[in-house]
Amino acid sequence: MNTEFDLIARHFSRPAPSGFLGVGDDCALVPVAPGHHLATSTDLLVEGRHFFAGTDPAALGHKSLAVNLSDLAAMGAQPLACLLSLSLPDVDHDWLAAFAGGFYALAGEAGCPLVGGDTTRSPSGIVISVTVMGQVRPQLALRRAAARAGDDIWITGTLGAADIALRLLQNKLPADPSLLAAVRPALERPLPPWAFAQQLAGVAHAALDISDGLAQDLGHILAASGCGAELDYNALPVAPALRGLDSQLVQAAVLAGGDVYQLCFTAPVQARQRILALADAAALQATRAGRIVAEPGLRIWGAGGVPITLRNAGFDHFS
Amino acid sequence: MNTEFDLIARHFSRPAPSGFLGVGDDCALVPVAPGHHLATSTDLLVEGRHFFAGTDPAALGHKSLAVNLSDLAAMGAQPLACLLSLSLPDVDHDWLAAFAGGFYALAGEAGCPLVGGDTTRSPSGIVISVTVMGQVRPQLALRRAAARAGDDIWITGTLGAADIALRLLQNKLPADPSLLAAVRPALERPLPPWAFAQQLAGVAHAALDISDGLAQDLGHILAASGCGAELDYNALPVAPALRGLDSQLVQAAVLAGGDVYQLCFTAPVQARQRILALADAAALQATRAGRIVAEPGLRIWGAGGVPITLRNAGFDHFS
Repeated sequence: MNTEFDLIARHFSRPAPSGFLGVGDDCALVPVAPGHHLATSTDLLVEGRHFFAGTDPAALGHKSLAVNLSDLAAMGAQPLACLLSLSLPDVDHDWLAAFAGGFYALAGEAGCPLVGGDTTRSPSGIVISVTVMGQVRPQLALRRAAARAGDDIWITGTLGAADIALRLLQNKLPADPSLLAAVRPALERPLPPWAFAQQLAGVAHAALDISDGLAQDLGHILAASGCGAELDYNALPVAPALRGLDSQLVQAAVLAGGDVYQLCFTAPVQARQRILALADAAALQATRAGRIVAEPGLRIWGAGGVPITLRNAGFDHFS
Repeated sequence: MNTEFDLIARHFSRPAPSGFLGVGDDCALVPVAPGHHLATSTDLLVEGRHFFAGTDPAALGHKSLAVNLSDLAAMGAQPLACLLSLSLPDVDHDWLAAFAGGFYALAGEAGCPLVGGDTTRSPSGIVISVTVMGQVRPQLALRRAAARAGDDIWITGTLGAADIALRLLQNKLPADPSLLAAVRPALERPLPPWAFAQQLAGVAHAALDISDGLAQDLGHILAASGCGAELDYNALPVAPALRGLDSQLVQAAVLAGGDVYQLCFTAPVQARQRILALADAAALQATRAGRIVAEPGLRIWGAGGVPITLRNAGFDHFS
């Protein structure tokens, strides 16, 4: 018998952390610390749209939570708990066990236990819906609208690898197994900086996670904050695996490539040393690559001070 | 241009309630009152599985939130906010406007504002994922495991109409337009008793919402509480529209019919007058139909004290 109850019991029942009630009840009950607000976000991953049929289920379990943890990181929120809904065309216990393994491993690492969800049979492809809940002191939350003229622009991690991996897997680039091996983890196993991001609360001003491409996502900060930015392309942290590739390809991947799940944030000049020390402590790369200015618009400067114009600003799910 | 941003801006952007921050940011920030826990639940609705292709989109918008509010009611939690993710095969603005209308109308009625979500194009049918968040004092939350021998068993609203509507729409019963008109609102526009349920916190013991059929759902309370129940079939609140139908059909609809989204709860005998007064104040029907006993198992008594045996105990999404 493969009933809904069996599926949940077999693959998605692990002991609830102490302090949590109601797991397995109609609702999970999640404590939120005094003085904090609940921070919450949800993402939907659809087979054939966000991932290929046949994607490694452990990587998919990891990524479906990672993209949501990335939203918590973008607010400087501490992960508290998550919910997972799965719509599956059939019951494949090996697939489910591997998916659950990838999901739980990251949930454990992030201190973000799975406390509820829903499973159902779908007539067609796999659909994964994850909701995360975290907590943050509202006055310290990193908001898109909080950038100020004079702020530095920072990027965590590196840029471009996930986009090159996607192009290789879509056969939009000539097959290159060693390049694929180097860039694939960035696409399939993103690790958003949720712990570092909590340290930024009260230090940085604005932040968001890079999911649709740096230029487009930074544009959201600029629009919400009513300001502009000067970005120094040559200062951007290009993924090392991209060295030697065509420079136009690299530029597109770095500026417009999505699926990064690292942070772009702004912070006052006085916070530079503090941010570098926090990044060091988190064993994380944090790179300063521009500044916020009063004049609206995003200007990107390339080698020799030549402006860079983007044709395709990023990824849109309905374009 | 039908971009993701356009869709959200056009159909799902309404002013955030005061006290909420971050709507439109990476996470919504939701205040939770001191002394309360966050109560959260999520449900996935899949076209062809949970609703028919061509279902009235306004009713679908209503129901996709209602089934989640029902989970909050089952815990005695106060609605705070919700998230909505939609996976759509194409962009139909009339459909989206009607869906959003049904969703927002119920969200407004329940004080449960939509604060975030995700939209994406799916290769196949419509998938709707809703997450609700509420708050409840953890020591007062209605829990499945809290039934005690001697408790009364109570049902809110009436039973059976949604199941008959489903059978009619599936052509499992002979066409009967006037019957369908009478029972269809129960299936398509369920109204869970979220306000009354908050009043039960601290008064009732165990509760859950009837989604898979009374017998099966009450069974979850009994299993979690380690006790049994005697249910008086003739005391159950049968939907008036079912009068005159075949008695075996009515019995199956009342005991095993799903999609009810009313509460089954247990409460001490001393609370009877209080519960009836609360139900009166809420203009809600609350019916006492049995009691919790120490001996395990669910025994249902029909006319003349004849025991009723169920062949099919309820609905399972993977059976």
